[in-house]
Amino acid sequence: MSTGIELVAIKTLGGDQPNGVKDNPRQRPIVIIGTGDYGRSFAGRLVKTGFKVVIGSRCPERSRPNVPEGDVFVTSVADAISRGHIVILAVPRHAYSDLAQLRGELAGKIVVDVSNKEKLDKEKSNAEYLSEEILDKSLVVKGFNVVSAWSLESGLVGGSKEVPICSDNKEARSEVIQLAKDMGLAPLDYGCLRAARDVEAIPLRLLPGWRFAIKILFALMAVMSLYVLFQGPLYMYVTQGITKDVQHFPGKGMNRVLAWLALTLLTLVYFPGIIAAFRQLAYGTKYQRFPDWLDTWLKSRKQLGLLALLIASLHACFSACLMSPEYYYHMYELGPVIEGRQFYGLMFWRGELLIFTGGLALALMSVLGVTSVPSVQNGMNWREFAFVQSKLGFFCLFVSTGHCIVYGSTGFTKGYLYVWYTPPPFLLAMLLPCLVILLKFLLLSPCVNTRLMRIRRGWESKPKANPV
Amino acid sequence: MSTGIELVAIKTLGGDQPNGVKDNPRQRPIVIIGTGDYGRSFAGRLVKTGFKVVIGSRCPERSRPNVPEGDVFVTSVADAISRGHIVILAVPRHAYSDLAQLRGELAGKIVVDVSNKEKLDKEKSNAEYLSEEILDKSLVVKGFNVVSAWSLESGLVGGSKEVPICSDNKEARSEVIQLAKDMGLAPLDYGCLRAARDVEAIPLRLLPGWRFAIKILFALMAVMSLYVLFQGPLYMYVTQGITKDVQHFPGKGMNRVLAWLALTLLTLVYFPGIIAAFRQLAYGTKYQRFPDWLDTWLKSRKQLGLLALLIASLHACFSACLMSPEYYYHMYELGPVIEGRQFYGLMFWRGELLIFTGGLALALMSVLGVTSVPSVQNGMNWREFAFVQSKLGFFCLFVSTGHCIVYGSTGFTKGYLYVWYTPPPFLLAMLLPCLVILLKFLLLSPCVNTRLMRIRRGWESKPKANPV
Amino acid sequence: MSTGIELVAIKTLGGDQPNGVKDNPRQRPIVIIGTGDYGRSFAGRLVKTGFKVVIGSRCPERSRPNVPEGDVFVTSVADAISRGHIVILAVPRHAYSDLAQLRGELAGKIVVDVSNKEKLDKEKSNAEYLSEEILDKSLVVKGFNVVSAWSLESGLVGGSKEVPICSDNKEARSEVIQLAKDMGLAPLDYGCLRAARDVEAIPLRLLPGWRFAIKILFALMAVMSLYVLFQGPLYMYVTQGITKDVQHFPGKGMNRVLAWLALTLLTLVYFPGIIAAFRQLAYGTKYQRFPDWLDTWLKSRKQLGLLALLIASLHACFSACLMSPEYYYHMYELGPVIEGRQFYGLMFWRGELLIFTGGLALALMSVLGVTSVPSVQNGMNWREFAFVQSKLGFFCLFVSTGHCIVYGSTGFTKGYLYVWYTPPPFLLAMLLPCLVILLKFLLLSPCVNTRLMRIRRGWESKPKANPV
Repeated sequence: MSTGIELVAIKTLGGDQPNGVKDNPRQRPIVIIGTGDYGRSFAGRLVKTGFKVVIGSRCPERSRPNVPEGDVFVTSVADAISRGHIVILAVPRHAYSDLAQLRGELAGKIVVDVSNKEKLDKEKSNAEYLSEEILDKSLVVKGFNVVSAWSLESGLVGGSKEVPICSDNKEARSEVIQLAKDMGLAPLDYGCLRAARDVEAIPLRLLPGWRFAIKILFALMAVMSLYVLFQGPLYMYVTQGITKDVQHFPGKGMNRVLAWLALTLLTLVYFPGIIAAFRQLAYGTKYQRFPDWLDTWLKSRKQLGLLALLIASLHACFSACLMSPEYYYHMYELGPVIEGRQFYGLMFWRGELLIFTGGLALALMSVLGVTSVPSVQNGMNWREFAFVQSKLGFFCLFVSTGHCIVYGSTGFTKGYLYVWYTPPPFLLAMLLPCLVILLKFLLLSPCVNTRLMRIRRGWESKPKANPV
Repeated sequence: MSTGIELVAIKTLGGDQPNGVKDNPRQRPIVIIGTGDYGRSFAGRLVKTGFKVVIGSRCPERSRPNVPEGDVFVTSVADAISRGHIVILAVPRHAYSDLAQLRGELAGKIVVDVSNKEKLDKEKSNAEYLSEEILDKSLVVKGFNVVSAWSLESGLVGGSKEVPICSDNKEARSEVIQLAKDMGLAPLDYGCLRAARDVEAIPLRLLPGWRFAIKILFALMAVMSLYVLFQGPLYMYVTQGITKDVQHFPGKGMNRVLAWLALTLLTLVYFPGIIAAFRQLAYGTKYQRFPDWLDTWLKSRKQLGLLALLIASLHACFSACLMSPEYYYHMYELGPVIEGRQFYGLMFWRGELLIFTGGLALALMSVLGVTSVPSVQNGMNWREFAFVQSKLGFFCLFVSTGHCIVYGSTGFTKGYLYVWYTPPPFLLAMLLPCLVILLKFLLLSPCVNTRLMRIRRGWESKPKANPV
Repeated sequence: MSTGIELVAIKTLGGDQPNGVKDNPRQRPIVIIGTGDYGRSFAGRLVKTGFKVVIGSRCPERSRPNVPEGDVFVTSVADAISRGHIVILAVPRHAYSDLAQLRGELAGKIVVDVSNKEKLDKEKSNAEYLSEEILDKSLVVKGFNVVSAWSLESGLVGGSKEVPICSDNKEARSEVIQLAKDMGLAPLDYGCLRAARDVEAIPLRLLPGWRFAIKILFALMAVMSLYVLFQGPLYMYVTQGITKDVQHFPGKGMNRVLAWLALTLLTLVYFPGIIAAFRQLAYGTKYQRFPDWLDTWLKSRKQLGLLALLIASLHACFSACLMSPEYYYHMYELGPVIEGRQFYGLMFWRGELLIFTGGLALALMSVLGVTSVPSVQNGMNWREFAFVQSKLGFFCLFVSTGHCIVYGSTGFTKGYLYVWYTPPPFLLAMLLPCLVILLKFLLLSPCVNTRLMRIRRGWESKPKANPV
């Protein structure tokens, strides 16, 4: 009943190509129950990779799959099952109950549950429900649920997709794993059917890797917006009763928030690495696990960096639109005063340097962003990735901080910016990055660095923890 | 003569590694005829993946492949053929006639045709021509033609490439399929040699998936440009004989066209989905195939979205360059009037809100764009993809429409914009998106939504069409 | 001792699934020595893909790998080795000496060296050192060193990673190749252990493909910056003693450099192809190898193009920020003169055309950039790629040159721009692209083109070099 048996069969028949069994497995068709989108796509994919398919349908006459007739044969469900050994169950869970009557036909067959849940719940998985309550004598295998009908049809351009597969029956599992391989997928053995709960949870995940970074983004954005509102329009209203300033928040104010936010996010990409380094120095080992918060933070660096790039690009758009003496008069050379109105000329060096540093920082950040595209990353070795992400990245942080300092340099001494004894945003903005840069240089100092490198190479202050 | 035979051979010799045959198939070299770029690259790839190669060349002495000498042996064509079982034919079609004289040597061998046509024609494929008119007793297999010499050499970084393979001889086909697998490619079984016509057509395709979207783009662009010309310069010329307005078309006028175009393209991404939903509601089933026009449209949404992003970015560049009171005076606060010339101050809230909404929309669109990079997409499960592309995407459409309304809000009441009884562009621009948003909210209304969800889960109003 | 033997074993036991041996190889656990990050990740990956793992540790009690207990068993090093046939050595080179005492236990086993060097040196590879000086009777295999612990854990989303594997023992090599395949990697056979030197050099590479392009970038940038400084501030200082002009270098001056640089880089993408074509025409064959400098240049076109895109985007940012009559007065219509100060109105056609051509060029360049993302490229066939990169790309060069000419068109006749008998930058900038475009059109002329096409199809003026 397994490909192995077929192998033997062929051998006895003097068949001269056992590999053929795997590459050209037409001896036994794969059975698919269900003519929905998924069933059709699955059938199409199977045919494409050289299988024969039998589709079981309630109403064979009216279901015509979009695949070459020769390789696909549509018949009644019971008949279909009788023709194959592996049965792909492409029906929604609520239709499982109808399968009870097929218990007999499905006994001893490998039944592959490809279904997904509609929302996470504490109940048992579809596969367990199928195996325990509907089909008692079948070899139920969970798999393929992470692959969408769409990616089955589109032929998975851009890299093989990983497919977790689990079952309580080893042979059934390995046969389905082989099937997945033959379909050009990358199966992963998840062990017993109990694991189906995790497997069914995968497609219900919603960007878990982004949670942390996005929370940080919105929290910072809220705080910074309030601070800018407070330091600007609110102050003007309370002290001078001027209300019209609030209308400059969506552009001028928001641009301040974006600049501050982008710089802070970028800093948060390099901060955790420095904390980790000091921690390793303190404990004198790298085998000490990090606390969860630091671990999460370290794992979210890529996401924080990409958000920093997004915000920085926005900041660039805003600045390019608003860049005029009316908005940034302190960056422009004074021109003539006509009828009491001050006119301006070109920018003076501060303004131009501001554009220069800003542009450079944005360019560097874009490079960092591009290299975090999975397929670009795959083409780089670890050293190249580390060079771009840490060396280039840190230089980018350095330039961005410079950008902020150049901007602020006109205002440090202007007392009227320190309203209500609070510093202007640009001053707050540059504190954290300056701290991080300082710590980084501390780590790069020879004495500290050599010790850190030794620790990173596996050396430990208390040698009993040595790996081998 | 097949790996199978070799397997047996090894077994009898007490060989302890049948898998070895597949992983370490040095027993029989692969023969390559032709020392062109493709032949060399193919040889290099074979050697890299652990094969021995014999290259057949007319002038063995002067053809030196760029691969380690040990694994490659260059000899005369006839001699090369005699040394192997699988023969890769890396010569252009016009050289096939020379092969007739080798008919004898090639009899019974697996001859792999890797050639491509230079243009689509109705004639039979190269492989069929080779099999029927040149070599009568060889097992001709079509394959590898979709892989370029370049990607063979560069080692296909970024994901396995799918390689259609077809032949009238099953064993030959499955051996070549195995060869492709061993080379790190993803072979697809295309069945009989007749399919070679399709296989040879694949490399001649020119962006079929983009046709629809690009036609739409240029059609809309033409219409909108004419309308803007008509409403602006043409009107000025006809009514007041002013000709100089046309010189503001490349910048000011074009920017209007781009804004209108970007918004319309983005709307066209979400329109077909809504049409499909209403269609499903009307027919009460999701198993009813869509008409071709709708199907094409649905399949082109990604392309439409990427074009929308491109145009929107252009619009942002244009706007950033032109953003000044001279161009968008109605967005700026009035300043002093000096010698009859009106001067301006900061933008008022409309202008800043315009920048805010525009920036936000562009940022959202870029996120949508990035997530449609294949390798990024592969890292997302269906739910994440749906969340970004539909939820985030629709929010983006919402913001973009807001951006357009904010811009227009100053002009609705200005009668002089309605020249020749035609509405100004921004008014036309916001009609379609507003309609789509309206319909979307209709679909989201509880009663409609629940019914739609049931249909999407496979429920049907006329149950006879139920899949299982 | 090999999977082959196990196969036999199963057979005698009436086992009915030889494939199972490969897919479900739980019969013999894989041994991992070392509980560092790499050892843990490797173990995790193995378990994920269905293997049993035994980890050998100096202090088994305190090393707990982050994988399901059932599949991983941690024990003493000696004991671990005794339990398996394949031993993964996940310890740093400096710990090899400790292994000498295990020479006996490791005799006859397959020992996989996954280590990396810390810097390139002329000495023998770690694997050779291990094989020759530490373990004399083991089958040492080099492999997996190019895969990082991180990518083993993250599950290599975005495409299978190529893993070079080499060993002096064929069987050992092919078993490890099989192991790599089962782990979802793409093994490459690098032959004998001597190749370990190259294999260990791979992860130490630092962007070799970018060297050429980046050197060109910085060289051109330096020269152009000096020229712009010389033609601008230096001239003003020497002739009129004005020093303040230098403060307009970071913005106004740099923007000139960026524009010039972007256009030149883009031209350098298309120049080598034209040189190669003329060379082929001259030699009358395509089988003549190119000189190294041309080969390197041709191989660096993609990198040059991406740098051109980066610089062009920067130029766009700078221009958008500086676009105002104060900076580009010659692009604006004259407005009133008030108290001796010239005011300006809208741009006239030159200015708007400048924005139009610039925007178009940047949009085209971005399309070129996106299509060079590996995973996007994988989805395109050769013809599509050629169409985008050569047709679209050349059109982009054409538009960019137009952009430059439009900009310069106001200045050609202005004698005062030719200071010190040197032409203004924009004039130098347009020379090279104009030359390239001219040569391209020459190549496209029927007579030349037909001959070139024939040569590219393999035809040769001296037929003795014919491939077959």
